[in-house]
Amino acid sequence: MLPKDYADQNCSIARVLELIGERWTVLILRDAFFGVRRFADFAEHLGVPRAVLTDRLRTLVDNGILARRRYSEQPPRDEYVLTDLGVSLWPVLYAMSQWGEAHLSAGGPRRVFRHAACGTGLDAHGFCPRCRTAVPAPDVVMDDGPAAPARDNRVSRRLTVPRRLLTPLAD
Amino acid sequence: MLPKDYADQNCSIARVLELIGERWTVLILRDAFFGVRRFADFAEHLGVPRAVLTDRLRTLVDNGILARRRYSEQPPRDEYVLTDLGVSLWPVLYAMSQWGEAHLSAGGPRRVFRHAACGTGLDAHGFCPRCRTAVPAPDVVMDDGPAAPARDNRVSRRLTVPRRLLTPLAD
Repeated sequence: MLPKDYADQNCSIARVLELIGERWTVLILRDAFFGVRRFADFAEHLGVPRAVLTDRLRTLVDNGILARRRYSEQPPRDEYVLTDLGVSLWPVLYAMSQWGEAHLSAGGPRRVFRHAACGTGLDAHGFCPRCRTAVPAPDVVMDDGPAAPARDNRVSRRLTVPRRLLTPLAD
Repeated sequence: MLPKDYADQNCSIARVLELIGERWTVLILRDAFFGVRRFADFAEHLGVPRAVLTDRLRTLVDNGILARRRYSEQPPRDEYVLTDLGVSLWPVLYAMSQWGEAHLSAGGPRRVFRHAACGTGLDAHGFCPRCRTAVPAPDVVMDDGPAAPARDNRVSRRLTVPRRLLTPLAD
């Protein structure tokens, strides 16, 4: 529970933190933009304890950011997909990633993002400098940057690049 | 301490959360953009416990996001000012505030942000649609929106609007 004083902060930034400020939650959302949808894939890719993952996915579903969909009846299996509300969080994640890449990554960016329509790299604000337009997540293509992390697990290897955001992970 | 698995997330988003993901930390940064600089003012405006505020300010100084400056010798008093690195976090805070205002604020936005040079309201990405340019924090003017919070404490009343970001709070 947050102290009352914190709850009194009548502030949109405070409210966003209520929803996504928890560390694992933001990494789950990042993975969802990359195309991860299944419990086992989130668990393996993030190394998050299963009880924590269950809890965070439930919170995201309860708040309308992810939707749970059944993709197999036998055995019963669900996947978690970003809703429109969830997709609209892309500028928040993109701003965080750009600041981190600019200031905390010694070897250059880990990932680069381009406008699918023209292939131009997005600027730090998520704009396409060529088309002079803000690029929504479904029109963004991700690729490896100079400091791309090693693909050291099964999920990473299925996250092939270049890939369009929100494209489901291949089986 | 974060679990090793989390530290292994070779990801700029994860690293940003290490620095600013804690709730009070982001509210301190928000206040710093609004012009709050002094310990007593952060403490009163945020209602944050003093021990927590001391700890969070120290972490921000240690990470080069705030700089501590002595403004009075007798009695000795310091103020905390955003460094260039800290100012460059503005797109992250702005993206969070815009998402929150759009989706979590029933009565419309609490605060609106304009380009100081031309008075045009910024879009959701921090762009000035008239000048077609990304607007850095020092060129942003903040004003009350339709759902502006009540100015119910001494610090709030000194946060007069319209005000340019980063302008120190008046005494």
